Amino acid sequence: MDGMRNSMKLVALLSVLLSSQHGVAQFSLSDSIVVRALHDEILGRGECYENLRTLCKDVGHRLSGSASADRAISWGLSVLRSSGSDTAWLQPVMVPHWTRGDVERAWMHVGNGPEQALAIAALGGSIGTMGTFSDSGEDGFVEAEVLMVKRFESLDTLGREAVEGKIVLFNRAMDPLLINTGSAYGGVFNQRSQGAVQAAKLGGVGALVRSLTHALDSFPHTGGMRYDDQVHRIPAAAISTIDAQRISDALKGGEPVRIGMQLSCELYPDVQQANVIAEWKGSEFPDEYIVVGGHLDSWDIGEGAQDDGAGVVHSIEVLRALRAIGYEPRHTLRVVLFINEENGNAGGKTYARVAAEMGLVHVAAVESDAGAGLPRGYSLDAIDSSVGVIRSWASGLEPYGLRSFRRGGSGVDIGPLKTEEPGGHRPILVGLRPDSQRYFDYHHSDRDVFETVHKRELELGAAALASMIYLLDQQNWTGK
Amino acid sequence: MDGMRNSMKLVALLSVLLSSQHGVAQFSLSDSIVVRALHDEILGRGECYENLRTLCKDVGHRLSGSASADRAISWGLSVLRSSGSDTAWLQPVMVPHWTRGDVERAWMHVGNGPEQALAIAALGGSIGTMGTFSDSGEDGFVEAEVLMVKRFESLDTLGREAVEGKIVLFNRAMDPLLINTGSAYGGVFNQRSQGAVQAAKLGGVGALVRSLTHALDSFPHTGGMRYDDQVHRIPAAAISTIDAQRISDALKGGEPVRIGMQLSCELYPDVQQANVIAEWKGSEFPDEYIVVGGHLDSWDIGEGAQDDGAGVVHSIEVLRALRAIGYEPRHTLRVVLFINEENGNAGGKTYARVAAEMGLVHVAAVESDAGAGLPRGYSLDAIDSSVGVIRSWASGLEPYGLRSFRRGGSGVDIGPLKTEEPGGHRPILVGLRPDSQRYFDYHHSDRDVFETVHKRELELGAAALASMIYLLDQQNWTGK
Repeated sequence: MDGMRNSMKLVALLSVLLSSQHGVAQFSLSDSIVVRALHDEILGRGECYENLRTLCKDVGHRLSGSASADRAISWGLSVLRSSGSDTAWLQPVMVPHWTRGDVERAWMHVGNGPEQALAIAALGGSIGTMGTFSDSGEDGFVEAEVLMVKRFESLDTLGREAVEGKIVLFNRAMDPLLINTGSAYGGVFNQRSQGAVQAAKLGGVGALVRSLTHALDSFPHTGGMRYDDQVHRIPAAAISTIDAQRISDALKGGEPVRIGMQLSCELYPDVQQANVIAEWKGSEFPDEYIVVGGHLDSWDIGEGAQDDGAGVVHSIEVLRALRAIGYEPRHTLRVVLFINEENGNAGGKTYARVAAEMGLVHVAAVESDAGAGLPRGYSLDAIDSSVGVIRSWASGLEPYGLRSFRRGGSGVDIGPLKTEEPGGHRPILVGLRPDSQRYFDYHHSDRDVFETVHKRELELGAAALASMIYLLDQQNWTGK
Repeated sequence: MDGMRNSMKLVALLSVLLSSQHGVAQFSLSDSIVVRALHDEILGRGECYENLRTLCKDVGHRLSGSASADRAISWGLSVLRSSGSDTAWLQPVMVPHWTRGDVERAWMHVGNGPEQALAIAALGGSIGTMGTFSDSGEDGFVEAEVLMVKRFESLDTLGREAVEGKIVLFNRAMDPLLINTGSAYGGVFNQRSQGAVQAAKLGGVGALVRSLTHALDSFPHTGGMRYDDQVHRIPAAAISTIDAQRISDALKGGEPVRIGMQLSCELYPDVQQANVIAEWKGSEFPDEYIVVGGHLDSWDIGEGAQDDGAGVVHSIEVLRALRAIGYEPRHTLRVVLFINEENGNAGGKTYARVAAEMGLVHVAAVESDAGAGLPRGYSLDAIDSSVGVIRSWASGLEPYGLRSFRRGGSGVDIGPLKTEEPGGHRPILVGLRPDSQRYFDYHHSDRDVFETVHKRELELGAAALASMIYLLDQQNWTGK
C-alpha cells in the first residue's frame, strides 16, 4: 500500500466534502478550459512583448512630471482603446516634478592621491548641490571626508563629532542568504529612504547609499528618498556596488578618503498628469469592480522595462486576451495604468479616493509590479475565506508553474483600496509574483531595459494575471 | 469557519497518521536546519559560480574526443580533489571522435538571384561534403533545390519523385503553447535525430533542420543525429530559426530555391577518455552508493555553460558544501562527471556497466542536466513508496521555491543505472528541474556561454541538489 498516494485520495475526498459544506470554490472543467485558452492566446498570439518594446523604445523612461510620462499616458490610452475596452479615459492626478538635470558626478581622493571617478545617481527627491555648497554659485558641489556605516545605530554611537561635516556612505549590503530578494531589499531599504535624514541630523553634509542590488557592478540604482521637515536637507545619491566596495577598500588603508559630489537635480511645483483607466462593463455585477493594473511611471534612467513596463503590458494583455477568447465578464473589469508609483503614489491614492467618493465597490484588485520574470504565483491580502477560495484554485494553476499562494503585500498602487473602500467591504488584493532572483539586478538602474525581458516569461506572467482575473470574476463575492 | 484552513489541518493530521503507519518520512527539525545550512553555505560562500567561469573560460567547450575534453577531465579531477572527496579517480571510457573541421557554410539562391549566406552548424556525427559531392575533390559541396516539410509523413506523401536530388529542410517549429519547453523540444527532436535518414531514404541529398529553440535568432543549434546502416548517408546541419524562416518565405514566392552546403566534418576512430569520479565514504552504509552528477562533455560551439557546465559545478558544490557544514554521510557519496552524454552516452553506460560488474549497490542517483536556471523542483523516477517518501519532504523544501515533485525522466547519464543494477534493487533516480523557459535559447549553440548564467540561480540549483542528496542520505533505503 502506498501511504502517500492514499493520503492524497483522502485529501481530495475531504476537499470535496468541505468545499460543498462551506462554499469553497473548486477549479471546474470550464475553468481549466478558459485558463488553457488564455495561455494559448497569450503564448501563441500575444501582443504584450511588442507593446513593451514600443513603451521602452519609443516612449522610454517616464518619470512622473516629465514630458515622456505625458507621452506614456497618451500611448497607454491609445493601446487600451484598441485592446478591447468599452471605454477608456484619463483620471487627473497631481504629481511631483523632480528632475535630475544634466550634472551628476562624484569623485574620490584617497589621501593626496589623484581624483577617481565614482558612478552615482541622485536619489529621487534629493536637493542638488549647484550654488548651495560652494562660493562660486553655478559650479557648486560638496566635497568632504567620507564616513562609512552599515547601520543607523552606528551613527548614533559615533555621535555628532564623528559625523559632522562628513559625507556618510551607507554601505550595508543586501543579505545573500535570504531566498527572496525582495526580503533582502527590505533589509536595506531604509538606507535609501532615510539615510540623508539620519546623516543630516548629526551634521553630515551628504549621503551616499550603496545601490540596492545583489549585483556587483558599476550601475548606480536610484530610488525615492524622503526629507524630514525638522532636519536640514542634504544631497543624497546612490552609488554603484563596485564603487561602494572601492571606497570601503580605500578606507581600510587608513588614509582619509575625501569624496566630492555635484548634482543639478531640482524639485519643481507639482504638475497634473493622469491615471489611464479602461473599463469593460460586467454582465451580472456591473456595479462591482475588479481592477488589474501596474504603474506607468518609471525612474528616469533605463527604460522602466521591468519596473513597471511589464506590469503595464501584462495588464493590457489581460483585457486583450479575455476579449480575444470571447469571454464576457460578470463584474466590471478595469485596467488601471497608475501614475507616480515611484515617488509619491499619487496615482494609487487618487484612484482609491475617487472610487470612495463615487461609492464604487471594488471586489478585487490585482497588481503586477514585480517585474517581467517567470511567474511563480500570487501574494494574497484578503480575509481568510477569500484566501481559502483562491487557494482552492491551486491544483488548476499548478500545470502553469503557479504554485505559490502566500499571504503578503499586493502592490503599492492598489494598496490604498484596502482602507478607503466604502461600506466596510474589504476588497481582495492580489500581487502577481514573478520570481525575484533577477529583479534587483535591473531595478531603478540603466540596466532596466527591454533586452532583459524574456518573451515567454513575460507572456506567462500576463497569462497568470489573466487567469487570476478570470477566476476572481467567476465568483460571487458580495453574496448578492 | 474557514473550510480551507480546516481541511489543511485535517490533511496535516492524516499525513502524520499515514506516515507513522507506512514509514513515510517527514521533514524533521534537523532536516530543516541542515537544508538551511546548505543554502547559507552555497549562497554565502559558494564556489560553483567561479568554478563555472573557469570551466567555460579556461577550458571552453569540450566535445568528446577533443583535446579540450581531456583538459576538462584534468580540471574536474583537480577540482574534485580539492573539494572534499576522500578519493578521486578517472574511469576509462571509449568515446566517439567527431570533428567539425574548419569549413561550414551554406548559401541560398532564389531563382536566379544572388547568393545569400545562411547560418548553419553541422549536426554531430554528420558526414562532410568535402570530396564527396563535387568533381573537384577538396572543394566538395552539395547544392540542390530545397524541399521544405514539417512532418516526416509529408515526405512519404510527396514520394521519391519530389524528394530525389533535393536538400530537405525540416522546418517544424517548437510548439509555443506547451508550457514546458522540454516538451516542445521533444515534439521536434526527431527532425534532428532522424531527418537525414528520412530524407535519404527517398533520395534526398542533404538535410537541414530548423534549430530546436523557441528563440527567433541567427544562431544555429547543433546536436546529435543518427544514420541507419540500411540507408546511405547524407550531410545534415542545423540552420538558424531566422534563416529557416527566410527559406520558407522565399519558397512562397514560387521560384525554385537552391541551397548549397559545404561541411568539412569528419568521424575518426573512438578514443579513450574518462568519467571523473570522486568518493566520500559513508559511515553507516559504506557499501550503498548515492551518486550526484552531470556531464563534463559539451558540444563544440559555445562554452557548454548551461549544458552541462552547470550540472558539473552543481555536483562539485554538493560535495564541497556538505563537507563545509561538517556533514558526515551515512551512505557512500559519489560525484560523477560523466563523459560523452552528447553523442553516445558512453560515460553513463560505462559507469553503470562497471558498477554492475563490481556488484555495487546504488540506492539513488541524482543528475543535474537541465541548465543553470532557477530550480523549481525535481523529477522522480522511482517506485511508488520512494516517490512518497520524497514528496513528504515538499513542505520543508517549499521555502526555497522547490515545489515541483513530478514523476519523469532523471538524466541521460544516470539512466543506465535504472536497469543495470544487480540483485533486483531499483535505485531512485532524480533529476534536478530548473525552470525550462530560457534553456533552449542557449542549448547547443554559440549562445551557451557563462554570461547567460545568473549567479544566484546557479547557487540555488546547487543548494537544491545538495538538499536532495542530504535527504536521500538520511533514509535507510534497503532496510538493513
